[in-house]
Amino acid sequence: MTQQDLIAQVAQSTPSKIIFLVIDGLGGLPHPDTGKSELETAHTPNLDRLATRSMCGLTDPVAPGITPGSGPGHLALFGYDPVTSLIKRGVLEAAGIGLDLGPDDLAVRGNFCTVDKNGVITDRRAGRLPTEESRVLCRQLDRIQVPGVEIEVHPVESHRFVIIFRGRGLSDELADTDQQVAGVIPPPVKALTQDAVSSAAIINEFVEKARGILGHRPKANMITLRGFSKLPDLAPMGQVYKLNPVALATYPMYRGLARLLGMKYLDTGPTFEDQVNDLVSHYDDYDFFFIHFKGADTAGEDGDFQAKVQALEEVDRPIGRLMELEPEVFVVAGDHSTPAILGNHSWHPVPFLMQCEWSRKDSVTEFTESACAGGVLGRFPAREVMPLALAHAGKLTKYGA
Amino acid sequence: MTQQDLIAQVAQSTPSKIIFLVIDGLGGLPHPDTGKSELETAHTPNLDRLATRSMCGLTDPVAPGITPGSGPGHLALFGYDPVTSLIKRGVLEAAGIGLDLGPDDLAVRGNFCTVDKNGVITDRRAGRLPTEESRVLCRQLDRIQVPGVEIEVHPVESHRFVIIFRGRGLSDELADTDQQVAGVIPPPVKALTQDAVSSAAIINEFVEKARGILGHRPKANMITLRGFSKLPDLAPMGQVYKLNPVALATYPMYRGLARLLGMKYLDTGPTFEDQVNDLVSHYDDYDFFFIHFKGADTAGEDGDFQAKVQALEEVDRPIGRLMELEPEVFVVAGDHSTPAILGNHSWHPVPFLMQCEWSRKDSVTEFTESACAGGVLGRFPAREVMPLALAHAGKLTKYGA
Repeated sequence: MTQQDLIAQVAQSTPSKIIFLVIDGLGGLPHPDTGKSELETAHTPNLDRLATRSMCGLTDPVAPGITPGSGPGHLALFGYDPVTSLIKRGVLEAAGIGLDLGPDDLAVRGNFCTVDKNGVITDRRAGRLPTEESRVLCRQLDRIQVPGVEIEVHPVESHRFVIIFRGRGLSDELADTDQQVAGVIPPPVKALTQDAVSSAAIINEFVEKARGILGHRPKANMITLRGFSKLPDLAPMGQVYKLNPVALATYPMYRGLARLLGMKYLDTGPTFEDQVNDLVSHYDDYDFFFIHFKGADTAGEDGDFQAKVQALEEVDRPIGRLMELEPEVFVVAGDHSTPAILGNHSWHPVPFLMQCEWSRKDSVTEFTESACAGGVLGRFPAREVMPLALAHAGKLTKYGA
Repeated sequence: MTQQDLIAQVAQSTPSKIIFLVIDGLGGLPHPDTGKSELETAHTPNLDRLATRSMCGLTDPVAPGITPGSGPGHLALFGYDPVTSLIKRGVLEAAGIGLDLGPDDLAVRGNFCTVDKNGVITDRRAGRLPTEESRVLCRQLDRIQVPGVEIEVHPVESHRFVIIFRGRGLSDELADTDQQVAGVIPPPVKALTQDAVSSAAIINEFVEKARGILGHRPKANMITLRGFSKLPDLAPMGQVYKLNPVALATYPMYRGLARLLGMKYLDTGPTFEDQVNDLVSHYDDYDFFFIHFKGADTAGEDGDFQAKVQALEEVDRPIGRLMELEPEVFVVAGDHSTPAILGNHSWHPVPFLMQCEWSRKDSVTEFTESACAGGVLGRFPAREVMPLALAHAGKLTKYGA
């Protein structure tokens, strides 16, 4: 029995509220000049006040040593096994632009690229093709017909697009044609299993027709494909946890992720303060609020320590308004660490706090990596966050007689 | 998917170096007179200096409460599931004396014993038969022929030997004939599954022929067998972690273990200083150095507190030379505890340190059981050591989109 099967057995619907704030890329590392991490440098009075009233700890997103992408990092926080429930790129991109996928849909991320007269890639992003131009080319590719499947081509941004192949028995066991380097001829799609041979043939026919349409152009005259994927089998959060959950996220990918987990979402943003306002005004409509803040991760990935500090201060400011709502459970978590000195996602455990009733005592008075390391929750797998939050919200009944 | 499958997906080869020092039986317990453990009593300035610069913690070798043998203790440290990857005695003994086993080989540990005229064991070890005498008897048993298999009999030490049965379809689902008590008649080999019935018949034929050869002797006139085992299916470390690993161990069993995991090994020793010298002179040739120190365990098993203190001081002395190599990751771990006051392996968590880049802060300044209990890594399963070491050496890429 999986953890989710167990939770589903004891979950009950109650009026209690859970605010679930995910600060993307939350965890950091000390700056070599000051010995202080981003969180230790930032002025975050609200987070510190929350930490003082909370149980604190450190979460391992996927497993010790593993650096997660944002997909597995979030899945774990929502109580899904991030390894068996891996959402691959095609599906994630499709969900991110609001496409509703069905069980017969095979999604893949496409790039317009430029090839020379021998078919060798000279520019993997076709000079970061303007979105408007990409939109026109996508409309042309969208008209391609291949027997046995319906095909949709949707622009994303710049040179990036998503293709949906819809038909019975399609397999996603297909190798990428995007080899992530220039100077090579993109290979045909290759089936990784016997079951995928017919799917490979269909997609190769599509690619050949795309080449026919684009080939005369000086640039953006070819496509590469990456992350073939079908919808993973994810139980909707509402069903498994008996919740009525909503997402407040400004980035398409996180909205997409929330949709894949069966959450509703609100059009919100662009600032975190806007997200907080929207949460406050819809507070009566839902019982679980996933509110996602992207800025900390972006600054961390840019390797900009000071920008990450500012992002953390930006998220701190309106938190007081969320505290005033007095939800039964207030979680602040991160999907992974993004230390600015690394300029990348990392494997380091992530600070975590949960303000709630029925807490054990905790002496943590500030929301930092080292303070949380001494918290009463200790270091624990991110997958255990949801059961804890549900329990403290009174949403789990007794197991067994 | 196992932890190793996950790691294998994200592992990449890099030039970074990992020094992995295993102090056998490292953990201890306080001496009743002083209240100080062996590590707390020993003068270990280098280990303390390392601890000050490291992330520290305590490892659970197999699972809480479980006292591991050296096999499972090491397997866990190298990231293998010590329960599903159990190496049984026959294979371990064979690897320990340098035998290369193949998939068709069934290995078993044998003892020469003494039986009376009714076949009842009077001395399980035949008076701890001298190795030279054992060698002569093994040569006689080595000539035994049984249709359908090749047979090799190799002396180990004293009354102990190893038999290899080589043939298609042999099973290791066989019960020991060594019941580890005197006063009984050793039973014939019994098949534990239907598949093992023919293997049992072959081995019983061997035992009868051995009785025919030995039966006339006043002592060492019979054999018992224990730990029937075939090679477990262990992915080579080089393959799963993309490493080029080498072992520096003076005891045959640890070299054997390293071989089973696909490590190369260097002829080294007999002192720990020799091992360190050999590591230094081969530092350019490998990227993972398993250096094994046995003395602490031996002293602990002898129940000799002071000898264990001295062993810890012996291992400490040349560590400075390893630190000067400035490996990207320097691990000091133990395969299990061997408290001198117990005179045996134990289940207690084991002190651990890892010096590396991108460390979280840690206030530990000495390498002891109690100091490590307050380390930033907390208490964690030994199986998580390898993923952590690989991550900090930059040898793991991102998981998932």
